Formats: sequence, structure tokens, C-alpha cells
Amino acid sequence: MPGRDAFGKGYLQARLSGEFALAAHIGIAVESVDDAGLVLRAPLLPNANHKGTAFGGSLFSIAVLAGWAWLTRYLAQHALDADAVIQESNMRYLAPVTGEFRAMLVAPKPAEIEKFRKMLRRAARGRIRLRVDLHDGATLAARFEGLYAAAARAA
Amino acid sequence: MPGRDAFGKGYLQARLSGEFALAAHIGIAVESVDDAGLVLRAPLLPNANHKGTAFGGSLFSIAVLAGWAWLTRYLAQHALDADAVIQESNMRYLAPVTGEFRAMLVAPKPAEIEKFRKMLRRAARGRIRLRVDLHDGATLAARFEGLYAAAARAA
Repeated sequence: MPGRDAFGKGYLQARLSGEFALAAHIGIAVESVDDAGLVLRAPLLPNANHKGTAFGGSLFSIAVLAGWAWLTRYLAQHALDADAVIQESNMRYLAPVTGEFRAMLVAPKPAEIEKFRKMLRRAARGRIRLRVDLHDGATLAARFEGLYAAAARAA
Repeated sequence: MPGRDAFGKGYLQARLSGEFALAAHIGIAVESVDDAGLVLRAPLLPNANHKGTAFGGSLFSIAVLAGWAWLTRYLAQHALDADAVIQESNMRYLAPVTGEFRAMLVAPKPAEIEKFRKMLRRAARGRIRLRVDLHDGATLAARFEGLYAAAARAA
């Protein structure tokens, strides 16, 4: 039986660092995670452009990984043998990022999660929409919305 | 008077490598560029996830930089003193990328470019929509659409 921290910070950090080579270059760290949501953060320096603001591709990368991390953790926690992938995304850049930044994901509503689980069970493939806000301190700097798919692994 | 290669591969590679620290980690190289469009490429290895396919954040990064590169080159070529930034983007992932990948941008139609130039001249701020296709060999792997803004620098 998994301990209470079986799907905590250490678990998520190991998955992110182990599965995405670029995550280390961006400097992604798991700040917090529980069933209500998660926060990833990264420092400005490795992601800065020559104007001293964060590169849009780095902001996108931490956002898309926040969504992947939430879905991957959910699947593991519920012993659902499926892989999470991004299918479509929209990103709006609202303000330049001039320091350490955070990607914050609030878990979808229970009804949305339940719909996803039913699709996965019935069709061996479920889709779910996840939203991530990017913050630079207290400033909302960008908003990401991603449609993710989870496909059951062949037995 | 700039030579014929003043805004060619060397120019664009220097801008990308000099202005975005992450571009080197992704391994972005300018494959070709002229007034009709441009192609950037990157190797799989630094961008691979543990399944051996390219990370969605890397595909997004090369696509958003292809748009930035086109607009930055256009501004420089026409002596327009303005900075290009991404405002909003949409990315659709169509197929996994399992090898070296390319971001291909075809220049917008002359009428769209002219509209952008007029906005920039009249309002000191122009916006233009750029489309980038991501290819893995002959396979169309993702489609990116970005709305970019160019703001005239204060004199």
C-alpha cells in the first residue's frame, strides 16, 4: 500500500526530471502537489532572452508539463495504466516575466474528472481539458489551456 | 548597403542563438531563409522524452521561434525599429515526432504584411498572424499559429 507521500513532490519531481531532458535545462522544480492541484516553478536565468524576460517557449513548457504532471499523477494514483499526451493547446501571454515564475494548476471539477474516467474505461482513451496559470510573483503573466489525451497501454 | 546575405542564415542563426539561451539546448539550427519563408531544424536527442519522442514544449519552442525569426528579420530588413513578441498561440499535435524535426514558415500574403506595416506606422504597434508547420521527415506532426505583436521602440 503506497504511503501518504507516494504521489507527492518527490514522486512528481522524479517523473518530470526522469522523463523530459529539457526539464532540467529549464530548471523545473515541483513546489507543491496534492489532490487539489500543483505548482511548478523555474528560475529566470536559464530561460531569459537577451531583454531579461522569460522566453515564451519556456513558459509554455512549464505549463504543458504542469498539465502532464497532474494527469500522470492522477492515472498512477488510480492505477490506470495509460499514457498522457498533449493534443491541443492555447496560450495567451499577458505580461512579460522578469523573475522566477510559477505554473499553477487547480484540479478540474469532479464531474469533468469522472467524465474522463468513463471515456477511458469505455473507449480505452479519455480526453480532459486542463488550465494552468503562469505567475511572476503576484502578476498573472500567461494563461494556458491544454486538451490532453490518455490512451490505455496495450495489455 | 547590406550585401545579399545580410539577412540570410548567418544573420538569423546569430539572432536566435544570441537572444535565447534555450535555443542552444534545443539545438535549433537555421536550415534555410529567404523572403518566401524559413525552415528551422532540431535534433531529437536533446528534446526526447523517455518514450523516445519529442517533447511538446520543444516543438512549441521551435515553432514560436520560427515566427519570431520571420518577424524579426522582416523588421530588420525594412529598418523598422520595433521588437517582436508573441501574444497568443495555438498548437495542435497531430503525430509523435521520432527523429530530427523541422519548423517551416511560409511568409504571409503581401496584403497581410502591408496591413501589419500600416498598423505599426499609424499606431506604433502592429499585429500579424503567423503559421508554422512542424515536420518529422515527410510527416506533418504539429501545426502552430501565433499572433505576434511588434511595438516600436521609444526614440
